[in-house]
Amino acid sequence: MELAGIMDILVVGGGPAGLSAAVNARRRNKRVGVIGKEVMSSKLWQAHRIENYLGIPGVSGQELANAMRNHAEAEGVELIRDEIQNILFADQLFTAMGREGQYMARSVILGIGVVQEAGIAGEERLVGRGVSYCATCDGMFFKGKRVAMISYIPDGEEEARFLAEICGHVVYMPQYNLRQITDPRIEVLKAKPLEITGEQKVEGLRTADGVIPVEGVFIERPSVSIARLLPDLKVEDGVIVVDREMCTNLPGVFAAGDCVGKPWQIGKAVGEGQIAALSAVKYLESLPG
Amino acid sequence: MELAGIMDILVVGGGPAGLSAAVNARRRNKRVGVIGKEVMSSKLWQAHRIENYLGIPGVSGQELANAMRNHAEAEGVELIRDEIQNILFADQLFTAMGREGQYMARSVILGIGVVQEAGIAGEERLVGRGVSYCATCDGMFFKGKRVAMISYIPDGEEEARFLAEICGHVVYMPQYNLRQITDPRIEVLKAKPLEITGEQKVEGLRTADGVIPVEGVFIERPSVSIARLLPDLKVEDGVIVVDREMCTNLPGVFAAGDCVGKPWQIGKAVGEGQIAALSAVKYLESLPG
Repeated sequence: MELAGIMDILVVGGGPAGLSAAVNARRRNKRVGVIGKEVMSSKLWQAHRIENYLGIPGVSGQELANAMRNHAEAEGVELIRDEIQNILFADQLFTAMGREGQYMARSVILGIGVVQEAGIAGEERLVGRGVSYCATCDGMFFKGKRVAMISYIPDGEEEARFLAEICGHVVYMPQYNLRQITDPRIEVLKAKPLEITGEQKVEGLRTADGVIPVEGVFIERPSVSIARLLPDLKVEDGVIVVDREMCTNLPGVFAAGDCVGKPWQIGKAVGEGQIAALSAVKYLESLPG
Repeated sequence: MELAGIMDILVVGGGPAGLSAAVNARRRNKRVGVIGKEVMSSKLWQAHRIENYLGIPGVSGQELANAMRNHAEAEGVELIRDEIQNILFADQLFTAMGREGQYMARSVILGIGVVQEAGIAGEERLVGRGVSYCATCDGMFFKGKRVAMISYIPDGEEEARFLAEICGHVVYMPQYNLRQITDPRIEVLKAKPLEITGEQKVEGLRTADGVIPVEGVFIERPSVSIARLLPDLKVEDGVIVVDREMCTNLPGVFAAGDCVGKPWQIGKAVGEGQIAALSAVKYLESLPG
């Protein structure tokens, strides 16, 4: 999907921080798009019961996620299903490259959830040499071959089904409570990935029980690594560095929610999203022309 | 009203920041009391319609205030109607002196709303010499005399009625949209107070139209001045200085919401209240014994 024209604010991430930012920016009459994965905030969605978001006691994660999403839609926020891989800045504009499309905006708010910088041993070295983060993009390179998918989120189940249609054999290693995989072409393996092996290219995946021979390893995480998303963004101890106005070190780029640090809580994320939106509005008003 | 025993956390202020702090502290099983004025968060209560608190679209201030209050009550938060005048720290305990009672706690969260440090000319000099912040406490000193009440919140209307029963004449100067005063003993004057006059004691109140002769001036603000509440608390540019964990310069004292700075928004207040609560819990766990 591709949005026509230029947005005032592009929000990356459809969890509480991102949706709160979007709703508040809409109240200031800005054109706002929120880009999130299929399940908006899979972390919220999976929460059994939430008791501490003030004003809405005793709600399931799914109910709260729906209420938040409906609120954003009613305010005229454009919700887009995609995953941003990279954001470029040129000619006073941000261009976000997704798996499905490209999006242009005058400012960016990141609400991308917990930023997991720590990778699996061998991962960084073998990126592009058998390690991939995108089944849709790279699946065809592994036609008929043995691959593994390590997924930290349920979204990986759908990706694994996609791979099973192409690859010779798919080992699915869920690092969360598995929902459901019934596809007989997928072998589910409950194990922790210790190392991706191979010199010039991926040759295997080591677990406590030995090395599984594979030619490709797909990794599905809650968010894209910051180093890939916005290489110049300042990150310390695994969190995006922001000031109390939720400004990052890059002008026009703001961040809120779990990605800027603990506590990983909904109320905090909503509050920070609101502040980020108002800071983005202030930034937009300061631009020439 | 007086609470028996010692609370873990005393929250001063019953607006979104204070109630969010209280709900979150209860989820960590702390004993929490919230002390607020009669109308919990008069500012929220008066809001016509709130559209930007994520998950609850299109709600009146009164509805949202009720939902928040009900949530806090359901969690076992003790809601106390009082106004804290002063907080002392001794023997590892905070003692909060209210108009109605005293309260002891091991930590304090301030959610006291906008801190208006800027006073009226002459105000500071004449405190205790005709200037008072408490009709209940000081009304009798002005029996049969002419007094003025300058009020920034509707709560002043009730206070003015109380004064009218004691004093000879009451001039009520609302600095907000007046609700209703029908008491014939109260003269409503819509004017801005420019200066409280008098050398050794209050002699008059100057407005653009001249000086009104009075012997007492009562001032009703959304919150007690910080200088009176907690003299050692660090305040800059009219806001309580906090770090990103909502810690003030005083160990065991946290703050959240409008009193720590703009934007004055509900989502921000709720998020900060949550962070303050978790920081207070961490502080309590670090105490010896």
